Amino acid sequence: MSLAAQPVRHLATALLLLLLSLAPAFAEAPRPQERVENFLLGNGMEVVVIPDHRAPIVTHMVWYKVGSADEPPGKSGIAHFFEHLMFKGTTNHKPGEFDAAVAEIGGDQNAFTSYDYTAYFQTVAPDALGGMMGLEADRMRNLTLTDDVIATERDVVLEERRSRIEGDPQSLLSEEVQATLFQNHPYRVPVIGWMHEMEQLNREDAVAFYDRYYTPNNAVLVVAGDVDAATVKRLAEETYGKVARGPDLPPRLRPIEPEQNTSRTVTMADPRVTIPGFAKYWLAPSYRTAEPGEAEAMDLLSEILGGGTRSRLYQQLIVKSDLAAGTGAFYDGTALDETSFVVHGSPRGPDGLAKLEAAVDAEIVRIQRDGVSADELDRAKNRLVRSMIFARDNPAGMANMYGAALTTGNTVEDVQQWPARIEAVTAEQVKAAALKYLKPDQSVTAYLLPAAGTSN
Amino acid sequence: MSLAAQPVRHLATALLLLLLSLAPAFAEAPRPQERVENFLLGNGMEVVVIPDHRAPIVTHMVWYKVGSADEPPGKSGIAHFFEHLMFKGTTNHKPGEFDAAVAEIGGDQNAFTSYDYTAYFQTVAPDALGGMMGLEADRMRNLTLTDDVIATERDVVLEERRSRIEGDPQSLLSEEVQATLFQNHPYRVPVIGWMHEMEQLNREDAVAFYDRYYTPNNAVLVVAGDVDAATVKRLAEETYGKVARGPDLPPRLRPIEPEQNTSRTVTMADPRVTIPGFAKYWLAPSYRTAEPGEAEAMDLLSEILGGGTRSRLYQQLIVKSDLAAGTGAFYDGTALDETSFVVHGSPRGPDGLAKLEAAVDAEIVRIQRDGVSADELDRAKNRLVRSMIFARDNPAGMANMYGAALTTGNTVEDVQQWPARIEAVTAEQVKAAALKYLKPDQSVTAYLLPAAGTSN
Repeated sequence: MSLAAQPVRHLATALLLLLLSLAPAFAEAPRPQERVENFLLGNGMEVVVIPDHRAPIVTHMVWYKVGSADEPPGKSGIAHFFEHLMFKGTTNHKPGEFDAAVAEIGGDQNAFTSYDYTAYFQTVAPDALGGMMGLEADRMRNLTLTDDVIATERDVVLEERRSRIEGDPQSLLSEEVQATLFQNHPYRVPVIGWMHEMEQLNREDAVAFYDRYYTPNNAVLVVAGDVDAATVKRLAEETYGKVARGPDLPPRLRPIEPEQNTSRTVTMADPRVTIPGFAKYWLAPSYRTAEPGEAEAMDLLSEILGGGTRSRLYQQLIVKSDLAAGTGAFYDGTALDETSFVVHGSPRGPDGLAKLEAAVDAEIVRIQRDGVSADELDRAKNRLVRSMIFARDNPAGMANMYGAALTTGNTVEDVQQWPARIEAVTAEQVKAAALKYLKPDQSVTAYLLPAAGTSN
Repeated sequence: MSLAAQPVRHLATALLLLLLSLAPAFAEAPRPQERVENFLLGNGMEVVVIPDHRAPIVTHMVWYKVGSADEPPGKSGIAHFFEHLMFKGTTNHKPGEFDAAVAEIGGDQNAFTSYDYTAYFQTVAPDALGGMMGLEADRMRNLTLTDDVIATERDVVLEERRSRIEGDPQSLLSEEVQATLFQNHPYRVPVIGWMHEMEQLNREDAVAFYDRYYTPNNAVLVVAGDVDAATVKRLAEETYGKVARGPDLPPRLRPIEPEQNTSRTVTMADPRVTIPGFAKYWLAPSYRTAEPGEAEAMDLLSEILGGGTRSRLYQQLIVKSDLAAGTGAFYDGTALDETSFVVHGSPRGPDGLAKLEAAVDAEIVRIQRDGVSADELDRAKNRLVRSMIFARDNPAGMANMYGAALTTGNTVEDVQQWPARIEAVTAEQVKAAALKYLKPDQSVTAYLLPAAGTSN
């Protein structure tokens, strides 16, 4: 099992999954020819342009600063449901026209919803950019939201929940882990929504959500690829620039977590499970909420402890012993509010779970007690920063990094300074972060077990 | 330890604790001379009069249909904080005048806040009733809410939280158990509030809360004791009747629980703990949400399994073996939404926790498999119904039962029919309730341990 390998917080497309696996959080500073431009339209819409002329392709993304954690209580799922509704027709374009336009030119498009943002993107040839912007600007305000459209698409997201969550013990377990880890913050509610609340979502909810959040001043346009800033600016003014500014929204202040004082477990035993596994979660600061350097230290801690085959967990538990079939660590610092740090493992053979968990715990204690070596810290820094090279080679990857940063309280400068901030982290900071955040008596441990019954 | 013996959901006065220990949920049908009268004032305020002329005393209560589960997200503690503010001055009476008026006549007064309601009461001689109603009606609308009053009283509730919760491992554990048991419903948030949110409560929050909820049409007046309905009606019209009707509030629809699929544990180890213990919680229907007869069956199940010295847990684990120093069961059916059923135990000696838990689990399985005997069901019914006799002897107890019922979605008739509905429960219904609700793979188990470290 690899609970953490599944990005709990994303209803991601295959593309996003790929990007996440490449890009822990932010990008390396762009090369000189990739000078990023950042400006506002008159109606408050933020624009980021990331030129990259190596291939005749452009990724066009619109990010809305609204995700499932902004939903009203009792209306879980409306953010993701709305993402689906955006693919229906508008007063200017029939349902399917947008899809057909992209398909006709051999482009690709999709969308995704997370706790903190909702994003729409197309990857097309540069000369199609203006058309994409016209279509995207159109559906920002002119969507046709009839009861019929609502009812039909609600059936689609209900079926999506049935097949992706209800049919998958690991997904069900992940939901209840989040609901246990977050006692107060809306990150405890699944992005796709609770079934019984999704069933009640209606036209009134959709219209209220659309009018409040789908406005130019609540959106970020990110264009990356074979295009220049002047062209993007002109096209953006002709399309998005014509959309009226929406209401000024209050700051995104969600209920935050109280001090936590317990260790918790969440156990699911299900006949459909073939490989047992565990995952241990701690609350951790995000890039937005952390003290300076702490989120960077958490990224390095995650890399040193469980980031791939060079990590301590992999080396100790798979290479040097045969305790684990799989193991790793995961930290997602790209969040508006407090996030989580996760370690996970599945034993080799059905009986080694407790022993494996103890061995993973021991690796954490070893870092908390002895710290990390200068050498392994350097190598982890290199791996993290180098991993950005892959992302940088892909306009969609760059667009994704800037969009996620700008919708979770960070800036273009934060993205650009990230490699330098990673380089500046000391071994002492990594040890301090492990001590401060990975406390055994304030963790939540998930157990996924093959047979019916309870764990321990 | 006896987690369940502490009414998690009440910030109760000594009086309320006494009443709860006497009165599981509702009262026996009143005797003929205790004909209950129930009517509305012109402004929508509901009135219940429970005459009882055996002693020259009267209990006057006003119940507001608002509790902590009605608070806006991020404003936890405002309902209880507001209860405190109600004891400050009004435009007509200086701070302390109400207290002094009650004390002068040798009366008693207090207030309490729960998830679903907030109540204020005085017990006085009958000729003081009119004066009490005047003072209570006055503070329903004329409270003086200055920044000074807010700041001073906020310090008081913060100190209350520090001493009652932060200073008590069992209370801290109970909070996190509730936050784990309820994944979506606001019952997961403590009545007293999370410290970091209480610190931010301000005058604006208090005024908004007052204007929305402290209105005659959101209140129930309950008068019990040496008084007749005509007198109460006349006095109520002269006092409460003069208060303008407030806004019509929408139905109290809180986010409800999703289907739960895991078993969870919550562990606190603290050097201040001397006696270990565990408590196992299940979600359970309340009298308002249950199918007909189910809540009554849960009350009987609780009584048979763990209600006092005649119960199975007590007999098996204390009398026939020496596994437990304490054990019992608890069900609180008086709630607007889904509530909980709890079993708990502390071992005799420091090492018997796991063995005791297994023995408690075995008693539950025994009921689920073999049901309960006709004889023990009859005796449990008698104990429950007879326990009402004590409550009935006390006007405050009667007032409390009617007030709690009417502010959690029940009626005067529900209270009066309760004994008959208890009598009608069959052994099969008790067994069915145990099977339906006490599932081991959907429970939350709390462990309170003496030393630092984690459990299992």
